[in-house]
Amino acid sequence: MDLTQHIRDVPDFPTSGILFRDITPLLHHPSAFRFAVDQMAERFADASLDAIVGIEARGFLFASPLAYNLGIPLVPARKQGKLPYKTNSVSYELEYGTDSIEVHVDAIHPGQQVLIVDDLIATGGTLAATVELIERIGGRVEGVGVVVELSDLKGRDHLNGYSVESLLTY
Amino acid sequence: MDLTQHIRDVPDFPTSGILFRDITPLLHHPSAFRFAVDQMAERFADASLDAIVGIEARGFLFASPLAYNLGIPLVPARKQGKLPYKTNSVSYELEYGTDSIEVHVDAIHPGQQVLIVDDLIATGGTLAATVELIERIGGRVEGVGVVVELSDLKGRDHLNGYSVESLLTY
Repeated sequence: MDLTQHIRDVPDFPTSGILFRDITPLLHHPSAFRFAVDQMAERFADASLDAIVGIEARGFLFASPLAYNLGIPLVPARKQGKLPYKTNSVSYELEYGTDSIEVHVDAIHPGQQVLIVDDLIATGGTLAATVELIERIGGRVEGVGVVVELSDLKGRDHLNGYSVESLLTY
Repeated sequence: MDLTQHIRDVPDFPTSGILFRDITPLLHHPSAFRFAVDQMAERFADASLDAIVGIEARGFLFASPLAYNLGIPLVPARKQGKLPYKTNSVSYELEYGTDSIEVHVDAIHPGQQVLIVDDLIATGGTLAATVELIERIGGRVEGVGVVVELSDLKGRDHLNGYSVESLLTY
């Protein structure tokens, strides 16, 4: 199945000059959505996973059915201040300013094998920070799975040594 | 299964005096999470659904596996400015100020039957705005499904005449 048929190009979002790859048509097409989630499972079928970390907010859309289907604990990684309980966090640089990504302190136990899921990899900043966060609390990152990869932005270079799987690449 | 065992009470979040019902332990427990998603499906098994609308961000965690499992189009409802394409939106009152909820203009077609899913109903403001939004664009709201209901806050009163199903009530 050609998943690119279910991605919409939106020019000038979120700012002028950016061509945004919109995944909502994929969500809207049940067999394409199922294919995407099942493909993600297949890419990591050989990993023994103790948890799937989904990155807020679009990452939730793929991490959640994956965790549901595989019967693996689901861990939301959220922006600063969104998780109610005690958290661990890692800050990372944005083009202007910084941001933080957090998980609950009891979300991952030392030695657990973790898959990180997001909808898209661009520069890889958020994903690299999430990898750092998971490792800082003792987790082992078995892989990073995304639906869309924007290869021009070289996000993989921030994730050297990790298994990065994308379902489609621009 | 008693889902309340998988909800964590967090005092004073997001502000002093609020007892927050944290669903992350439920997400972390695969059989409880599966039970919650499957229960939600069962509650609306008699509805003929054309779309499932998940409300950002925690609503995505339940709407997505539900849509995946039932093979029904998934529509993200997001806060203002987050959806890339043309949107319809409805504003609603918060305790201080207002907020907006949006869906893409092509997300729901007139006459389509829609289930709205969120993690929790408190005062019902966001859910009522989402119902208004779906109806304004011609959708028919078949029901509202949430995991947690805070009955003291009388959110159901904002959704009179709609089928509101919650999996657990405080």
